[in-house]
Amino acid sequence: MEHGASILRDLFVMFAAAKVLAEIAERIRQPTVVAEILGGLLIGPNVLGLVRPGEVHDALAELGVVFLLFVAGLEVQASDVFSVGATALAVAFLGVALPFAGGFALMHHLGRTGIEATFVGAALVATSVGITARVFADMGLMQSMIARVVLAAAVIDDILGMIVLAIVSSLSAGSVDYARIAIILLEAVVFTALAVVFGERIVRRLGPTVANLRMRESYFIGALLLCLGLSALASYFGIAAIIGAFLAGMALSGKNTEYDLDSKMFPVYEFLVPLFFVVMGMRLDVTVLWEASNLGLAAAVTFVAIVTKIIACSIGAARLGWMGALTVGIGMVPRGEVGIVVALVGLQLGTIPNSLYAVVITMSMATTLVVPPALKFALSRR
Amino acid sequence: MEHGASILRDLFVMFAAAKVLAEIAERIRQPTVVAEILGGLLIGPNVLGLVRPGEVHDALAELGVVFLLFVAGLEVQASDVFSVGATALAVAFLGVALPFAGGFALMHHLGRTGIEATFVGAALVATSVGITARVFADMGLMQSMIARVVLAAAVIDDILGMIVLAIVSSLSAGSVDYARIAIILLEAVVFTALAVVFGERIVRRLGPTVANLRMRESYFIGALLLCLGLSALASYFGIAAIIGAFLAGMALSGKNTEYDLDSKMFPVYEFLVPLFFVVMGMRLDVTVLWEASNLGLAAAVTFVAIVTKIIACSIGAARLGWMGALTVGIGMVPRGEVGIVVALVGLQLGTIPNSLYAVVITMSMATTLVVPPALKFALSRR
Repeated sequence: MEHGASILRDLFVMFAAAKVLAEIAERIRQPTVVAEILGGLLIGPNVLGLVRPGEVHDALAELGVVFLLFVAGLEVQASDVFSVGATALAVAFLGVALPFAGGFALMHHLGRTGIEATFVGAALVATSVGITARVFADMGLMQSMIARVVLAAAVIDDILGMIVLAIVSSLSAGSVDYARIAIILLEAVVFTALAVVFGERIVRRLGPTVANLRMRESYFIGALLLCLGLSALASYFGIAAIIGAFLAGMALSGKNTEYDLDSKMFPVYEFLVPLFFVVMGMRLDVTVLWEASNLGLAAAVTFVAIVTKIIACSIGAARLGWMGALTVGIGMVPRGEVGIVVALVGLQLGTIPNSLYAVVITMSMATTLVVPPALKFALSRR
Repeated sequence: MEHGASILRDLFVMFAAAKVLAEIAERIRQPTVVAEILGGLLIGPNVLGLVRPGEVHDALAELGVVFLLFVAGLEVQASDVFSVGATALAVAFLGVALPFAGGFALMHHLGRTGIEATFVGAALVATSVGITARVFADMGLMQSMIARVVLAAAVIDDILGMIVLAIVSSLSAGSVDYARIAIILLEAVVFTALAVVFGERIVRRLGPTVANLRMRESYFIGALLLCLGLSALASYFGIAAIIGAFLAGMALSGKNTEYDLDSKMFPVYEFLVPLFFVVMGMRLDVTVLWEASNLGLAAAVTFVAIVTKIIACSIGAARLGWMGALTVGIGMVPRGEVGIVVALVGLQLGTIPNSLYAVVITMSMATTLVVPPALKFALSRR
């Protein structure tokens, strides 16, 4: 009972901090998602220390970001993705190659070892699409061409990021395990292809049966199960759970209006999504920046992370016109867990020092915080 | 990421087990809530071992039962409670006194020590209203007179149960700490009285301001915050969090229809409430009953728990007619966490043996499982 009490207290504090700051942000016309992250930073262990994030907070945050991408998927049809497929492929591949090269070159230029340069390059690869999806959702632009390109590119980007992770892990272990990388690649591509190609067909075939079950709201419950199931499967195949959630949403998007799924998801979304951003804020460790040398390196890596991603992805999306292409580039800037996981692998293998790990985390934070205002500005200029 | 993956997989398995069994239960016209508990038992560590409950599962279950009682509260007006206040008081007091006496007498008769008899008596005191509320909700009877009496009595019963817990804890510590008991009593009564008397007034006063905030769905978000806040406060004052959630729902019940709160809560409810019952099932340790001597004692204690509660509460609710009074009695039968906590305190203080702890858990399980079919039958006979 004590335990239950403390998590309820924590949730109250987290949710209240998120919403009070979000209300202030609305009034001064700033992105609410940044306000929620700042709310988390404020109540977290590095500032006021009101809430100490633990396993339960992380799990609720994970559920929040899964539902965020699920709702994003509900507004995207598979045909929309195919129609932007070539553009998304170009955005994803360039957006992986150039940041890797940029990160590697920077570290090499600074006289770091090849393995350190490789790890930093790898950490700059993968876009984390959560915050961008949230800005699109807040502005009601989830069905715009730009959002579709970004979301489709994020799916491909995530697969590429995972392959890069597999390569650098085996590199630092001494030799590259090509067979293992091939298997990971095959699993991820087959899973994604099956979900995109057959997901909607299976939903169309089974939907009426599920809708006619005796239990109340059976279609909504079936949709929740599909979301949880594909998220868990995606993780099992080594790609981010949120990609599975997005694919589940996409499979259901054809019948979204008929069964009113997004308005039914809305309360779950309103409760859990802010918790993801609050936990992100609570986990922000601002203390790593107190050291001046770290701060300088972090600024340089962050600069490279932002500039290379924007240039590469804008070139990939050139056919959207320069403003549209630039907006796609900005939308692809946030790095999240994947970059941090790459750095963590390097840290655990003893191939990168603690300070470099802190630098990667700072880059991940900074790219996340910088995007919402920039993206909001770019989107309102179109 | 690994961690996130495993909780998503667990949630998928838990939610799927709950819903598949619930669908079967619907078809054979059995209570779905028992099906959800059995689903949990099936996938839990004592049978198939597909999911091992941990801190995260417990926290989600706690949220589930909090929202269950919050939604129950949304359908109960403070004036409804006052109109049944005298009856509820009689139900609660008799329903605490007779089971305590019955449990004590049984153990004394079996030649157990006075302290063991006191602990078993105390464990039979507190009703856990979650499962009863769920049956009322499933049958659309939350606003019936019987439901109102049961819910109001459960609030009072919970306060009394907490006092009994304080007394037996200090008893086994050697002496009764009257000052501490008086403080606990005062806090709990003042908290409940303030929530009942001023809750609705404060909601009526602040509601329009909250509804006019800039953020989307501000009234719904304010309602969620009130629910989490009062739950946490109730815990802080030593009563069950679900009582706070129920009082929050009651404070909002006057404006429920205007702001459409219960239909907005519905998806959150549909997702989280089954998880509470699944976790309850996963925690059912059927292995304690393999020993014949335990089984016999457990059967006797369970029998006393059921019969004394039904008789006492039916007498308390006599003015509802004999069928109504009997139904209230059945609705008050389930013992939950509070009884288990009492036994746990005894176990930790070394005043009751392990086998007696197992007996109390069995009683708690059995009284919970027996109620839904009996209550459904009684309600359909009215």
